[in-house]
Amino acid sequence: MRIHEEHFTVDGVPAVRWTPDDSTTDPRPLVLIGHGGGQHKTAPAVVHRAHRFAASGFAAVAVDAPNHGDRPSDDRYQRIATEIRARADAGDDPAPLLADFQALVAAQTVPEWRAVLDHLDPGPVGYWGVSLGCGLGVPFVAAEPRVRAAVLGLGGASARAAVEAAARITVPVEFLVQWDDERVPRAQSLALFDAFGSAEKTLHANPGRHGDRLPEHELDSAVRFFTRHLTPPPH
Amino acid sequence: MRIHEEHFTVDGVPAVRWTPDDSTTDPRPLVLIGHGGGQHKTAPAVVHRAHRFAASGFAAVAVDAPNHGDRPSDDRYQRIATEIRARADAGDDPAPLLADFQALVAAQTVPEWRAVLDHLDPGPVGYWGVSLGCGLGVPFVAAEPRVRAAVLGLGGASARAAVEAAARITVPVEFLVQWDDERVPRAQSLALFDAFGSAEKTLHANPGRHGDRLPEHELDSAVRFFTRHLTPPPH
Repeated sequence: MRIHEEHFTVDGVPAVRWTPDDSTTDPRPLVLIGHGGGQHKTAPAVVHRAHRFAASGFAAVAVDAPNHGDRPSDDRYQRIATEIRARADAGDDPAPLLADFQALVAAQTVPEWRAVLDHLDPGPVGYWGVSLGCGLGVPFVAAEPRVRAAVLGLGGASARAAVEAAARITVPVEFLVQWDDERVPRAQSLALFDAFGSAEKTLHANPGRHGDRLPEHELDSAVRFFTRHLTPPPH
Repeated sequence: MRIHEEHFTVDGVPAVRWTPDDSTTDPRPLVLIGHGGGQHKTAPAVVHRAHRFAASGFAAVAVDAPNHGDRPSDDRYQRIATEIRARADAGDDPAPLLADFQALVAAQTVPEWRAVLDHLDPGPVGYWGVSLGCGLGVPFVAAEPRVRAAVLGLGGASARAAVEAAARITVPVEFLVQWDDERVPRAQSLALFDAFGSAEKTLHANPGRHGDRLPEHELDSAVRFFTRHLTPPPH
């Protein structure tokens, strides 16, 4: 199937939408993909997922986070990112600083992503994001009632704000854990899963470290998860 | 689809096979289902899964465990089962005694189930079993090279024998955890998942207590898991 890729900006924020080249009229269900730390909105892993979602009948959208992709570098974020790396290299736990950082960025991305949804006026919305995409995704999904299902993961309950936001999430959640994650302590991952307020939530754990490629069957699972929750059953 | 149900015995052990009423010639891939404690081989939950597997092109087989279903009651097992219930009712941890009990039963069921496979001479074999079906399934899957993939769960690493058997399992495993299991401590569940020697293993945790109905999407997932590992890809 041919996939159509369309770049656009909303209030100066660069975004991209992938849609299948078919005859479906909008609004179709949409999956917003949050990219990982240091990635571009068209990083290979993002495009791989976006194409798969589009080939399954969804629109997929990704937005450059501040200080990422086609956006200007931001000295404030740059300084904190450098500090986090230095702490990790020194063997200190970077989790508290990382959590503060993600909360700071989320205060900017939550309204930006909501503006992207306003601009697109989509059908039912899903959210997919791990690592930074989870740190920014939890407050977004908690704040945005158009999101009806979320795949999150590779993130932990390292800050009270994250736990409180997770507790406000009530839509179905599929939560990915890398069992040998060297950056997110396993107990913090399980605590974040515990914190979700959703009646339907499933934790999927697979062997692997933080940056390892997720198993392809997890993308299959995400497609079925979004199909189940964003696609109305046939009458 | 019509499902054919055929009862048979192997060396006096009662078993049942479900197959789709279609034109496929044997050997077709087979899923052996281990029933739960106190259940019959045709308990509603077993039949529900068996029909789903059969409708997906597998043969499904279930065998009455000793002291269960159509088999005579066994005073020795009966006494231990009574003792386990008494300990649990008294607030003691029944896990060590339960593990010893399951090891005792497995010493009988492993050769019985292997004899059932010898009798049926099937194609690739999968195993599905939770709770008692996990306690008996882990030593069976470890011992039986015809099993190429296993869905296990609602069981823990409560005994060294279970951990050692799990470590000998190298086929893909999908491992189910009830997140609010009041009978299997969460840490023991995670430890059993840790123990599997398989390079491909995925833990699926869902909210719920030990006896709660598993989410239907987990049966969907099991069908896809067995399809992935038991069905040769088309040439």
